[in-house]
Amino acid sequence: MCEANAYVIKNGQEEIYLESVDILRPEGNQIYLRNIFGEQKVFKGKIKEMSLLNHKIILEEEK
Amino acid sequence: MCEANAYVIKNGQEEIYLESVDILRPEGNQIYLRNIFGEQKVFKGKIKEMSLLNHKIILEEEK
Repeated sequence: MCEANAYVIKNGQEEIYLESVDILRPEGNQIYLRNIFGEQKVFKGKIKEMSLLNHKIILEEEK
Repeated sequence: MCEANAYVIKNGQEEIYLESVDILRPEGNQIYLRNIFGEQKVFKGKIKEMSLLNHKIILEEEK
């Protein structure tokens, strides 16, 4: 499966925000995420970087 | 492999922008993309939606 885990950087550490993300949709200053289990979250901030091969999405909180 | 193809919507149609994308990094009004072959592109616009399970990234040109 090709889902990716979404992390937020907090105090220089990567904290898991949502596992097994399928859908990402930026909406203004937020990002709507939905994972393969149907769990949905809205993150206030933006995408910092993604590596699909590493199954990794790094999110950055709104300043 | 879990890379995804990036498409741009033009005249209501999805046109391929870059195949087999690994890295995406939003940078201001642009998005840096790199694929698994090392090809790099900078897209002027934003991410509209991604589905990792469908291996699909939809990009939207700057208005």
